[in-house]
Amino acid sequence: MSEPESPGPVTRRRLLGTAAATAAAGLAAGAGGAAAAQALTAAPAPTPLTAVGTDRVPFHGAHQAGIAQRAQAVGQLAAFDLRPAGRSRRALAALLRRWTAAAAAMAEGRPPSDDDQVALDAGPSRLTVTFGLGRSLFARVDGLGDRLPAALAPIPAFGQDQLDPARSDGDLFVQIGADDPNVAWHALRTVQRLARGTAAVRWQMSGFNRAPGAATVDRTPRNLMGQVDGTGNPASLGKVWVPRSSGDQAWMRGGSYAVVRRIRMLLDDWDELDGGRQEAVIGRRRSTGAPLSAPAHAPERTPMDLAATGSDGLPAIAANAHIRLAAPQSNGGATLLRRTFSFHDGYDPDGAPDAGLLFVAWQADPRTGFVPVQRRLDRGDALSVFVRHVSSALFAVPPGCAPGEYVGQPLLEA
Amino acid sequence: MSEPESPGPVTRRRLLGTAAATAAAGLAAGAGGAAAAQALTAAPAPTPLTAVGTDRVPFHGAHQAGIAQRAQAVGQLAAFDLRPAGRSRRALAALLRRWTAAAAAMAEGRPPSDDDQVALDAGPSRLTVTFGLGRSLFARVDGLGDRLPAALAPIPAFGQDQLDPARSDGDLFVQIGADDPNVAWHALRTVQRLARGTAAVRWQMSGFNRAPGAATVDRTPRNLMGQVDGTGNPASLGKVWVPRSSGDQAWMRGGSYAVVRRIRMLLDDWDELDGGRQEAVIGRRRSTGAPLSAPAHAPERTPMDLAATGSDGLPAIAANAHIRLAAPQSNGGATLLRRTFSFHDGYDPDGAPDAGLLFVAWQADPRTGFVPVQRRLDRGDALSVFVRHVSSALFAVPPGCAPGEYVGQPLLEA
Repeated sequence: MSEPESPGPVTRRRLLGTAAATAAAGLAAGAGGAAAAQALTAAPAPTPLTAVGTDRVPFHGAHQAGIAQRAQAVGQLAAFDLRPAGRSRRALAALLRRWTAAAAAMAEGRPPSDDDQVALDAGPSRLTVTFGLGRSLFARVDGLGDRLPAALAPIPAFGQDQLDPARSDGDLFVQIGADDPNVAWHALRTVQRLARGTAAVRWQMSGFNRAPGAATVDRTPRNLMGQVDGTGNPASLGKVWVPRSSGDQAWMRGGSYAVVRRIRMLLDDWDELDGGRQEAVIGRRRSTGAPLSAPAHAPERTPMDLAATGSDGLPAIAANAHIRLAAPQSNGGATLLRRTFSFHDGYDPDGAPDAGLLFVAWQADPRTGFVPVQRRLDRGDALSVFVRHVSSALFAVPPGCAPGEYVGQPLLEA
Repeated sequence: MSEPESPGPVTRRRLLGTAAATAAAGLAAGAGGAAAAQALTAAPAPTPLTAVGTDRVPFHGAHQAGIAQRAQAVGQLAAFDLRPAGRSRRALAALLRRWTAAAAAMAEGRPPSDDDQVALDAGPSRLTVTFGLGRSLFARVDGLGDRLPAALAPIPAFGQDQLDPARSDGDLFVQIGADDPNVAWHALRTVQRLARGTAAVRWQMSGFNRAPGAATVDRTPRNLMGQVDGTGNPASLGKVWVPRSSGDQAWMRGGSYAVVRRIRMLLDDWDELDGGRQEAVIGRRRSTGAPLSAPAHAPERTPMDLAATGSDGLPAIAANAHIRLAAPQSNGGATLLRRTFSFHDGYDPDGAPDAGLLFVAWQADPRTGFVPVQRRLDRGDALSVFVRHVSSALFAVPPGCAPGEYVGQPLLEA
């Protein structure tokens, strides 16, 4: 009911216990983890936390946070365009330095500088803030033109795209996730406030997922079509990170590329299909998420068998089923890490909800990841008549950084 | 990871344990609780729950759920207008019967009929669905004119109102709250689907609060100004429910009245005030929420002393401070139960967030509750230059019902 009187020794111990556990997880993730662990245990006593004990994700490390971790209950996606005053390496570096410092503080549950207190006693709540760079940035900021990664090539137009340019692209990208809606909003507001004068919001989208809970935390989420969504994600993140051997821009090694698509679902049309037809369109059972090639009560992660046939001799997973066309084995091994949020922003005049999926897909190179998969889906996916891609963006997401560094520093200072 | 194979005896036992505990809470709440307890323990085996053990709020009882309970992490507010086909007592009764059955099922974690599966395995997550009736309904449906409660008198216009009629009023009101965003959305979609042909969405607003967690569940939430918001709520709900002795419409006894206002916060202006001036505007400390009449480290719920003066001889709580003007002792004892959600719906062209508070205030009679308090605030509240009321609605929220009954039945059938 009331504020704790002081952080006190018990609180400190609990904080360090949490920090040690999460730092250990960071160590496993890559080289940057060691620096992060050292910083977390050797740092001066932080501003007292009034809510320790809630989960947190270390900000620092070899890779940015918010990619490898399970998607949070709430997501905030925003793109910013540089204002004229922000179109220099110096101004951009200063912005990324401010953003990095604030994101690192908030990920530990500490208020950023000049805080508005909106999340003051809410705890970190698994907050992640992930920063990306759009292709337009490299043309706008002097001296960056020759540092444009080849992998940041424009995504080709697809036949079924119905894209709104105002909600597509952008110089800078911020992906925020947290299990507490207030914490996610506070991070979005903080990022926007810190950008004042340098960059303005180009577009912003709010999304959500199932909240974590004892009964649900290990389950694959359902999307707004009622489908278990994300079962096919790769078990390994090997194809998510730009490898050290990459011949593309060196500053992106350890980074990743985010394809962001606002995919509206035509839910009123979808609802008119019976359950069996919905399953045939996707290729998975509605109840469990298991592929239709598996026996009736098979668990969700039963591998799909694209050659299996039913008692009628037809393919168990239809020729135009979504999961067949999206499968790595249908696309030369192309693999995406999908890390999505649902969205709902009101209704059309006819009462149809403007709702669907904020699709965020991660890969080491979109030219061999999202692009070939989407090309195939665009041509024949049975799901395509029930969805509409209404915005699209691609961002280079630099590797993580160590304490004292900022995201994007190797691009701007090396 | 996978679906449980069957509900099994352990699952059943856990379910009944939860039901018994929540039914006991219902008993304490009022007469309807006894019926609810009986129904929950004597009901036939429900559709298997795939996620038991998460918190739930009993739907049935003397009062509707979603008023006395702490506000959930996610809120969905929607008003519906009856279509021509819905403007009869019979059609309205059928709609309220469908809505009641679906809300009761979802509150137990069971799928409603013809379910879209969006929240299939998410658990009830403290879901509440609360139904209300607007003044326009009584003019539209034959035979209801003489059943209009006097307490449903139009809210007078206030000098500082800037109301959008399209986002105000409405024939029917649905307030949804859940700690899981997917569960809240599923309930909204279900209510909308069940209204098809009978009623259409007039307006809909999404809101949020801090997520419940071990460290935060007992704290008063903060709003988007960073202020602890809700400290002054009454300790007793005596002035929330329409009393049995009410001389107004008998069908509203045990019900309540909801004033719903979308209050935009001018956050960029607010941010320009320093912390001391922000505290003076509200009358409370930013850090703890304690009134400025209390010593520096006093806890949040220290009673306010409107007569206290500071060392400068001036009132500790300024003459135009928000909490002074809103206090019951400034308004002849008028008391509101505030049960609010924050909102954020994008940005103005100048970059200002369209964000603020979905204010939902509950009382036995708005003519002696919200109206006198708002009249006083409208005239002199220091906060008023930082907020803008952009929509307003008032709904009669009937009492709760027992299993087998539906919300509003005494209005339509007695």
